[in-house]
Amino acid sequence: MNSKAMVYIQSGGPTSVINTSLYGAIKEAQKHPEISHIYGSLNGIEGLLNDRIIDFGKEDPEQIELLKQTPGSILGTSRHKLPKDFHDEEYSKILETCQKHNIGYVFVNGGNDSMDTCYKLSLLCKEKGLDIKVMGVPKTVDNDLAITDHSLGFGSAAKYVVNTVKEIILDAVCYAKGKVYIIEVMGRNAGWLTAAVDLLPEEARPDLIYLPENKFDMEGFLKKVDALYKKKGNAIVCISEGITFERDTSNARIDSFGHMQLGGAGADLAKIVENKLGYPIRAIELSLPQRAYSFLTSKVDSDEAVMCGTIAVQKALEGMTGHMIAIKRVSNKPYKVSYEPVDISLIANVEQKVPTSMMVDDSKMAPSFREYCLPLIQGEIPVQMENGIIKSCVLKRVLVK
Amino acid sequence: MNSKAMVYIQSGGPTSVINTSLYGAIKEAQKHPEISHIYGSLNGIEGLLNDRIIDFGKEDPEQIELLKQTPGSILGTSRHKLPKDFHDEEYSKILETCQKHNIGYVFVNGGNDSMDTCYKLSLLCKEKGLDIKVMGVPKTVDNDLAITDHSLGFGSAAKYVVNTVKEIILDAVCYAKGKVYIIEVMGRNAGWLTAAVDLLPEEARPDLIYLPENKFDMEGFLKKVDALYKKKGNAIVCISEGITFERDTSNARIDSFGHMQLGGAGADLAKIVENKLGYPIRAIELSLPQRAYSFLTSKVDSDEAVMCGTIAVQKALEGMTGHMIAIKRVSNKPYKVSYEPVDISLIANVEQKVPTSMMVDDSKMAPSFREYCLPLIQGEIPVQMENGIIKSCVLKRVLVK
Repeated sequence: MNSKAMVYIQSGGPTSVINTSLYGAIKEAQKHPEISHIYGSLNGIEGLLNDRIIDFGKEDPEQIELLKQTPGSILGTSRHKLPKDFHDEEYSKILETCQKHNIGYVFVNGGNDSMDTCYKLSLLCKEKGLDIKVMGVPKTVDNDLAITDHSLGFGSAAKYVVNTVKEIILDAVCYAKGKVYIIEVMGRNAGWLTAAVDLLPEEARPDLIYLPENKFDMEGFLKKVDALYKKKGNAIVCISEGITFERDTSNARIDSFGHMQLGGAGADLAKIVENKLGYPIRAIELSLPQRAYSFLTSKVDSDEAVMCGTIAVQKALEGMTGHMIAIKRVSNKPYKVSYEPVDISLIANVEQKVPTSMMVDDSKMAPSFREYCLPLIQGEIPVQMENGIIKSCVLKRVLVK
Repeated sequence: MNSKAMVYIQSGGPTSVINTSLYGAIKEAQKHPEISHIYGSLNGIEGLLNDRIIDFGKEDPEQIELLKQTPGSILGTSRHKLPKDFHDEEYSKILETCQKHNIGYVFVNGGNDSMDTCYKLSLLCKEKGLDIKVMGVPKTVDNDLAITDHSLGFGSAAKYVVNTVKEIILDAVCYAKGKVYIIEVMGRNAGWLTAAVDLLPEEARPDLIYLPENKFDMEGFLKKVDALYKKKGNAIVCISEGITFERDTSNARIDSFGHMQLGGAGADLAKIVENKLGYPIRAIELSLPQRAYSFLTSKVDSDEAVMCGTIAVQKALEGMTGHMIAIKRVSNKPYKVSYEPVDISLIANVEQKVPTSMMVDDSKMAPSFREYCLPLIQGEIPVQMENGIIKSCVLKRVLVK
């Protein structure tokens, strides 16, 4: 039998379960003698570009188990965009690394930008007639990947956001004289993660929810906040980082995919509320923990992450390439899914937004959103602690020569 | 037997375990027929001022159990400062409420500002010869109460900060081209909570830790950040919200105790770093969850919170007044404490800072800090979830007529 090595790539922003998919892939690969070595590419596609590849065979099995409770991308990540022209030197470098290490299977775990990388690699291998299978594993807390019912990492991020916003509200309502709270949630141009706060029970639900899918109506917003504050002495507003209104973005950074580095919309909006309405205000940016936190991982999300990693390996071994493992919701009560490979060309660079049918108006979600989202935050997974601090996977990262 | 009612007051900023102390007090009070009713004062001392008192006897026992996993002040809180002059009308109002409801025991659960309230009330009752016992229960995530070894709420806040900063660092190190991270931690004029990040294992410890106890050396700070970034491509800095440097505080709010509402130091410092050094930067304010979060409660903190509530009730029944239950560390290995009542006049309005002996220099903690702090974050407590969301205590809040 002609066995070949596999290499795993983590790409784009980290999530709570990106390392869990890697765990699933490693565990599955270990069962198959057709896979000679299990490698990891350091810092996304850059590892293949610069021949920085590590061997999971050299790692401690106990550390591999800890992958399931380690957020962030254990292999490092990258936002590097591959060039359009397949004659570019970058592609020769990548193929050189693949040939050097006898790599026959490449897995790219990422969001829609990363699926662009995955797509280009699979096309290149097909064009060159190389026996390298390239498969995608979906991941993004933004939940904006097309075709798949939802993306890995979203359920855990949603669970973090829901529970953390609940705790913030419990804190906020302690004061007789309240404030206007503007809580900023991630999600780029999609409002999925912000909308998740709608899952809260009514007594602890934010008053207003603003998603980037709607044009932001500043006048209407200020009126609603004013009315809430006058009525109950506080107002809890959740906004997506991607909502747009007139603000100074001259200092914003742009990444190599042309996306602006977001964040700060809440603080900017708070200043406007303070100036226009004069109420005491507090802006809270949920920031990095919302996308990669181990203490509020959804079991549904974690289990699905393992499955997608597992199935990607199985499908590659069956000879499939250029596909991403999508999640299809088979039924909602009880919640059941199936895993189906989808042609990556249908996914790369496409953004899936929150549909209008899931919103009542520009600041309130419809019940259909709740039906969609609630199953995704279900179940808890226990974490191992040591001296009051969570144990995380630490790799030796021995480079393959 | 002449039984009397007790009233419980929560005061100042919420913590993860302020409701746990209340739980301890309720459970103890239920054992004693000398206590006729268990009341709660809504919004701190304002409840006694405005006769807004609720009866825990009317609440569902299941909700009382949930107090142990409900952060925030379930009774509402206040930062109202009582006047100096005992002839002030406010005092007559308070005593009127006490007499109306036959209150013989008052418990004030709070930080050093709240102990001022507690002190004044106990003095007033003594002066007027009233048979009302007033006892204090220590609480503040700032850990700046004098005499007590540590304050309730600090251990859980420290555990949250330690673990959350660990997760932020795991996220931060994913990128080949890193950033300067400025993480802002609470604590007012004391650096205890910021210093807690020193408990992290070396591979995930912030590079620099700045406490308000030291004069902030901007030039030295910029030099250190520059050297770190040049060496390893990122820099992780934790600062206390209370560090002082030249910044625009013209819009800051002042509370009734004369304290400036802090927050935003990290964002301001980040702007300076960006302007002076030009490195990519991200400011993260841990914000409200750090002081009141249920998912990272320290069992040590929670158990001690129950004990302080319990003992405060016992001591009041023994006839004690004008004292706060302080925690004394009896031994460190194994960690053991005793609970000792301390005269509140020694505590009110005094701030306990991090001693110089616990610091190596202005950006590094000494091993003695670790020895002090590590026992306080030990042990986890399981939380009850429902549909992926934490269950929290909800009270009916029936007002006593």
